[in-house]
Parts: sequence; C-alpha cells; structure tokens
Amino acid sequence: MDRLNPQFARHLYRSVQSGLRARGTVMKLYTQLAETLAARIEQGYYRPGDRLPSVRALSQEHGVSLSTVQQAYRLLEDGGLAVPRPKSGYFVPPRRAAPALPAMTRAAQRPVDVSQWSDVLELVKRGARDGLVQLGRGMPDVTSPTLRPLLRSLAQVARRPDLGGLYYDAIQGSLPLREQISRLLVDAGCQIPASDLIITTGCHEALSASIRAICQPGDIVAVDSPSFHGAMQALKGFGMKALELPTDPINGISLEALEMALEQWPIKLIQLTPNCNNPLGYIMPEARKRALLTLAQRYDVAIIEDDVYGDLAYRYPRPRTIKSFDEDGRVLLCSSFSKTVAPGIRVGWIAPGRYFDRLLHMKYISTGATATQPQIALAEFLASGAYEPHVRRMRSQYQNGRDQMIDWVMKYFPEGTRASRPQGGFMLWVELDEGFDTLRLNRALLDKGVQIASGSLFSASGKYRSCLRMNYSRKPDAEQEAAVRKVGETVKALMAEMAGMQAEA
Amino acid sequence: MDRLNPQFARHLYRSVQSGLRARGTVMKLYTQLAETLAARIEQGYYRPGDRLPSVRALSQEHGVSLSTVQQAYRLLEDGGLAVPRPKSGYFVPPRRAAPALPAMTRAAQRPVDVSQWSDVLELVKRGARDGLVQLGRGMPDVTSPTLRPLLRSLAQVARRPDLGGLYYDAIQGSLPLREQISRLLVDAGCQIPASDLIITTGCHEALSASIRAICQPGDIVAVDSPSFHGAMQALKGFGMKALELPTDPINGISLEALEMALEQWPIKLIQLTPNCNNPLGYIMPEARKRALLTLAQRYDVAIIEDDVYGDLAYRYPRPRTIKSFDEDGRVLLCSSFSKTVAPGIRVGWIAPGRYFDRLLHMKYISTGATATQPQIALAEFLASGAYEPHVRRMRSQYQNGRDQMIDWVMKYFPEGTRASRPQGGFMLWVELDEGFDTLRLNRALLDKGVQIASGSLFSASGKYRSCLRMNYSRKPDAEQEAAVRKVGETVKALMAEMAGMQAEA
Repeated sequence: MDRLNPQFARHLYRSVQSGLRARGTVMKLYTQLAETLAARIEQGYYRPGDRLPSVRALSQEHGVSLSTVQQAYRLLEDGGLAVPRPKSGYFVPPRRAAPALPAMTRAAQRPVDVSQWSDVLELVKRGARDGLVQLGRGMPDVTSPTLRPLLRSLAQVARRPDLGGLYYDAIQGSLPLREQISRLLVDAGCQIPASDLIITTGCHEALSASIRAICQPGDIVAVDSPSFHGAMQALKGFGMKALELPTDPINGISLEALEMALEQWPIKLIQLTPNCNNPLGYIMPEARKRALLTLAQRYDVAIIEDDVYGDLAYRYPRPRTIKSFDEDGRVLLCSSFSKTVAPGIRVGWIAPGRYFDRLLHMKYISTGATATQPQIALAEFLASGAYEPHVRRMRSQYQNGRDQMIDWVMKYFPEGTRASRPQGGFMLWVELDEGFDTLRLNRALLDKGVQIASGSLFSASGKYRSCLRMNYSRKPDAEQEAAVRKVGETVKALMAEMAGMQAEA
Repeated sequence: MDRLNPQFARHLYRSVQSGLRARGTVMKLYTQLAETLAARIEQGYYRPGDRLPSVRALSQEHGVSLSTVQQAYRLLEDGGLAVPRPKSGYFVPPRRAAPALPAMTRAAQRPVDVSQWSDVLELVKRGARDGLVQLGRGMPDVTSPTLRPLLRSLAQVARRPDLGGLYYDAIQGSLPLREQISRLLVDAGCQIPASDLIITTGCHEALSASIRAICQPGDIVAVDSPSFHGAMQALKGFGMKALELPTDPINGISLEALEMALEQWPIKLIQLTPNCNNPLGYIMPEARKRALLTLAQRYDVAIIEDDVYGDLAYRYPRPRTIKSFDEDGRVLLCSSFSKTVAPGIRVGWIAPGRYFDRLLHMKYISTGATATQPQIALAEFLASGAYEPHVRRMRSQYQNGRDQMIDWVMKYFPEGTRASRPQGGFMLWVELDEGFDTLRLNRALLDKGVQIASGSLFSASGKYRSCLRMNYSRKPDAEQEAAVRKVGETVKALMAEMAGMQAEA
C-alpha cells in the first residue's frame, strides 16, 4: 500500500483548471501551496521518506505567512501526503507493504433465493453502542466537531415556536432539503432537480421501495457479489431471486458475466454499488459504468445504483454515478446521509428517474412521510456549507484509517491474508484461507467483546464464509488496535485448531 | 347530539370500583367530587339546562376547599358535563340536536384491486402547513403546552455529549421506549412485554410490514368499509385484493357479513380499526371484538388491528383492544404516537404476536432501524408521566371539538346531511345526498383555501363519493368555522347546480 495516493495528488493538481474556480470558489492561498507541494510529490521531486521543506523556507520561497504554510501542511497531512515528526518537520510517508488483493469472486450458476437472514440479524440486532467493539457494523464516526452545526440545528428545531418538527411533512419530503441534495448531486455528475427527488427513511427504504417498484415476486435481480446484505434481504423479503455476478476487487461487477447472464436469464433489474463499493471498496471505472448502462439499455433492464458511500471517495472530485450518464431514466439512484453524516437521523433519498410515480406510491405505503425534524436540520446543515468541510475531514480520516487498518491486518493476521484496497468509505474486506469459517470466528469473538461481519452475509447463498468485513471509521486508537489484534489472534488460533484436526485425521 | 355524554358520567361513577384504586392510584379529592356530580347528572338529579350548585355551596357540603371544587368543575367542563356562564356559575349543558347517523355501509360483492391512489396522493402530497385549512388530513393538534416536555427532550438529546441520537438504534427499537409502550398497553387490556414489541417508523410502517408479513400478492384481505386509505394503498402496492365488508356506524364491521365472506372466499387476513375508527369514529363493542376473534380463530385467519386512535377515546378507561383477548398470537396490533403526540416524529410500533420473526425481517428491509433521537425523547416523555395528562387534555379538547363541529355541520350544511357521532379521535364523517360528488367539491374548495377528504379515498373501489371526512382536532376558532362554512356553502351551491341540471334535463 502506498500512502502517496497519486489520485489525491492529481486531484489537487487538476483542481485549478477544472474544479473550484469554475464553480465560483476562490481558491485559498494555502490550498494553492498544498497543490504545488502535492504536484512535486506526485512528480517524484520529493520521494517516499524524504524530508519536506521547512515551514520557514516555504514561507520565504512563496512569500506567504507561516500560518498559511502550516495550513497547507495540515491539508497534505489530512490527505496522507505528509507526516509530521516531532522537532524534525514534515516527511513524505514511506512506501508501505500491503497484502495481496482478494481474487475476482466467482459467479453463482443460477438465480437463488436469498438466505442468511439469521446471520444478518445477529449482526444488526444490537444498537450501535452496547459495549461491543462492533468492527462489523457500517457505522461512520459521528464524533467529529464538524457535525456540531447539525446538532445545533436539531436542538433548535425542537425549540422553535412554529413546532415545525411535529407536523407531517410532504410525502415527497422537505423541499429545502431536496434542493440541497440536488445541489450536492452536481458533484456526482447529476443534474437532477429537487422535484425529481424523493426523501426516504434512510437508504434502506430507498432500496427496498425501488426494488418493490420494479420487480414482482419471482423476478430475477442481478447483483454484484459480494453485495450489501440489506438490499439482498429486501430481495428475500419480497420473494425475488438474486443472480450473483463475479466481481473484481478493482473494477467491480464483471460486464462479460453480466452480458452472458442477460442473454441467459430474464433479468428485471441490476442492483449494485459502483462507488466505494460495500464491502469491497472499489470505484468502478467510468468507462465500465458507461458500458454497464449500455448493456442495461440493450436488454431494457432497470438499474438500482446504491451511492451511499459515494461522497466518501478518497479522490476529489468524487467519482461520477452511473445515473450521471443515464438518458432514459432507467437508473434509480439511492443514497442517504447515514454514512456521510449520521445513521441515527434516518434520512435518505431516491432519484427514481422514469419510475417516479411508482416510487412515490411505494414511499407512501412504506412509511408515509419521513420524520420532519431531521429533514429541517439537515437542510440547514447543508445550506450553511457545513457539509463539505465535514465530508472533507471524514474522507481524510477514513483514508488514514484504511492505511492503519491494513497495517494492523499485516501485523496481526496470518501470513497469506488478502485484503481489499478501499478507494473510499470505511470498510476493509479480508480474505482468509479457503475453508476458514468466519461465522465460527464471530461466535468465538463475541466472548471477547469484538464483532466482525462474516463474508457470508454478503452473499445470497452463503458464499465468502472465509472472508470478513471490518470497519475503520473511528480514529485509530489503542482499543481499536486491541480489537483487531484479538481478531487476528483468534483467526490464528482457529487455523491452528483446523490444522491439528487435519493432522489427526 | 347530547353533551351529557353518559359514558363519561358512567365511567367516573365506576372508576372507584374497577379502575384507579385497583391500579394503585390514589384518587384525588376533586376527582371524587367530580364523580359524585357526574353520577347525579347521569341519574337525572340535575337536568339539561339546570344550574349546578355554587362552588361555595359544594365546598361547604363536602368539606373541601374552594379550589378543589373548582378543579372538579374543570374536570366536568373538560368532559362536556358542565358549562360555565360568566357571573352565573356552572350549568348542565342543554340537550343538542344532532344530524342523523349515516346508514350501515353496503358490502362489496367481491374482492377488488384497490384504486384511488391519485386522489389519496392529492390529499397527502402537501406538508401539513402550507396555507390551506386542511380539514381532510389526520393531523392532531400539536400546539398543546402539555407537549413541552417532549420538545425539551428532543432538544436535549441533540445537546448531550454522548451523541446518542446520531447512532443506529437496534432494529427492534429502543428498549426504554418499548418498556414504556408495554406499560401503556396495560390500559388497552394487553400484557405485552417489551421483548414482544417492534418499533416502527409510524403506524404506516407497522401496517405495511404486517400486511407483507402475512400475505402474498393476490391474497384476499377483508377490511372494514370505509377504511383507512393508507392500509388500503398498501394492499394495492403489494398486489393484494380488498374485500370491503358492510360496517355499522355504531357497532363497526358486520360480523354476519364477515362470516359469510369467510365461508365464501379464501381470506388470509382481516384488517380493521375497531377503536375510534377512522373514518367513522365508532368504538366496536367488547362482545363484538370477542366474537370477531372467535371467527378469526375458526377460519384461521390473522387480524391486523389498527389502534392508532385508541388512546383518544372520550371514555375512560380507554376501550380494550381485540389483541387483549388474543390467546394464540394471531392479532398484530399496530399503533403509533402520530395521533396522540405528533406525526412528525414518526414513531409507531407493532405487537406482532406469533409473527414476530417475520415482522422483524420486514422491519429490517423496509427502513433498517427507526430514527434514534425521537425514540429517546419519547421514552423520556413517557417515563416522566407527561403522556397521561397530555392525552387527557387532548381527549377533552377533541370531544368538545366534535360537538362544535357537529353544530357547524347542522348550521352550514344542507338539511338532511348525516354525520357520525365519533366516540374518540378527531374526525367527523359526513354523508350527503346520493349522487353528490365530493371529489368535485374538493376541487371547488381548493380555490377557497380549504381541503376536505373525499369519502371515496376510504373505499378500495371508489364508493362513498357522496361522503367526506373533516378534522376537528384544533381548538374551535373563527378560521376553522369559516372553513366549515365554506364547505357547507359550496356543498349547497353544487347541489343547486345539480338540481338545475336535472330540471333542465
């Protein structure tokens, strides 16, 4: 693994041309300086392990204040391009070793009924804070001070004499919030007016309402594999069949396999997470997104695109959605603020394209309106401009968390362990030797106060039982490291036990 | 309509024996005095129009303080048993005239696909506060000062350093909240532990998850008729058929018709609102609730019991649920705080009986967990004991509102208009001459800033087009009266137009 993150360097380099100025933002001095330094690192002028120029030297060279240089260094530090050493200044981080990637996953041979509910329930039944170190949950870090304006708004809405939070909202959701989401979607390449958006109770409702609006019981849905268990359990609940397609840990769902499947089966829908995939962490390349859409057009199937981690891509500008290329409204873009802001507020949305009317009906019957107070508070948070710095901070934190988590896996897990290289979000996918049982691992870990997500939850048919998913959203600390160490040690102990049994047999 | 409300008088009379003391509550002096006076009114000792004894006289007669007598009179006033006249003291309210009741509704001949979505959408698509006087919405009054403790809790949750409101809650919902609901359910005759309850995003989610857990597309569901449009639209969305059963405006769903239907059709589920029915306002008598359950047992069908208005019955103790007689777990009790507290917080629940596991799965796929902050705040509101006085106050307000609304209908609507006599909640059902079109009425009213709910929304097949539903939750005021007058005058104008057209033809 390489901390240099050329994507980040490249983005800083390109941002003058394509990005900020075009959108009317005046680039700050420290951002310009950070960009210059990032470009030098990318071009190899400074190498891994090199000491970077002192604050004083840069201040003189560029004619800017000392604090401007310090801000620039903080930005580089956030992006993982510079590390401070006490009393020595800033250094380009050393190149790191990284585990091998997991292999391309294998295809299911045919559509199957989704199973695994009891194991999913085991993962999600607890609240997010009951003593366990829940490495298995999709929980972001909500302790960042950049969320304070949101908490303030939430409190204020309850204090206002208009009692706005107590009334029913419109079924479609709050207009000011939809307007803000419409603005954010520009970053994902989408021009979607507020009138084409529907607010939902989290991305969960967006996904399950979308599935129900498109499919009937018995219909076949093609999914990336491994795939988000929430969407697959919705298929189970509504009686649809999942066709799991082989998926590459860098490029995403196999288009070749998808095309063959579309030839062979009457597929109604493709359901996938192309950006910062859960659980594999890849970002599907743009050309492949376009190609997938072309396939969907040719075979006339709908696409549900889960973009819930999209704003947490480590690269900037964030990757485009498949929806951004959609011309005939066949893509239902589903997302929420559960990963970028906080899951407890339960605010998500759908851009349902040509299926708008059906989705509005599904939304109405599923929960009526969405809770009012969180919508008002979120709209204020977004309108105030507080979302962007918050997400920027979280992206950096998660990127550093990824590197730390990979280090810990290298350190504590058995040799030969493979792991994903997430390009966004806060989840690492770890692959152990075939035959290893992570459901059993989880049971052994619960006594030790740690929980991971077994890979089998991410398969309709219980595949990936030798894999697991771990969350690195919280700032690396001793408790987190101890938890990962416990996982690694328990893996080793169980492997030794397996080896012993094999030797006996 | 008679303001004496014998049920209220009787309940006060009986409460010593059966109610408060048995549950360990010490009855206050003023409650005892109010009970004595209520009994005298019920027994005819004081007649409609009579002056009641002065505060001073009662204070001397019963050896209690003046303020105790004043509190007793306020209680009687809240219950509609006494009216103050300035400088003259309290009087037994005069007997009032009331419109005739609507007739028993007629049965559908066969199960039908549910229609009416576009008209329902027209009703619910707006937020609850955009300028219209929305007589058609199921919106409670949320301006009562008795809700202040809830608002305080909502604000405080956002201010607490534990950030509790931002985390995922458990799928089943907050345990402290479930414990409070379990306690409340005792009043509905139910002994249901917190572990058997699931929190939902409003009653909407409770109903639609229940329907989906029991039925498959194509299944037949028997419903009271008229019936809540939300539940019927869920049948539509999931592809089930509704069999509308004749329903009496006093006794509820016809058991005779239900039995015939159970003989004739493979009914999977009975869906109804027996307490403070929406839209008819009746409370199904206890004996009929038991008989309905016996029928359901004999034909082995499940019952979805919507109790969302149950705590708003004007009688106290509140009526029992069908669920309270349920011994084999076939009743799914669905409710929420949307009508008793505030709809914008979107907190409901299910007691799903034997269907618990299926419901938990349905809940998970529909929205994941329910929003955390409102659950914490509500649990605090309930635990503090603030719910009971709040609901007591709202019951009185709504009972007075009902009488006022009926007066207005008598005053402003054409002669021959029929109306329900709601025993709880805040909705009046009004029946006009056959052939009158309340969808057209609604279109005519929108220009005048008023909205009613056309009766056709409450039928799967568009029946009750000559009926309408009006909300009387807010305290009677000039704006509300003006709105009802506009409705009445527009009805008259449209009737005159119809008569003119018939004369021409």
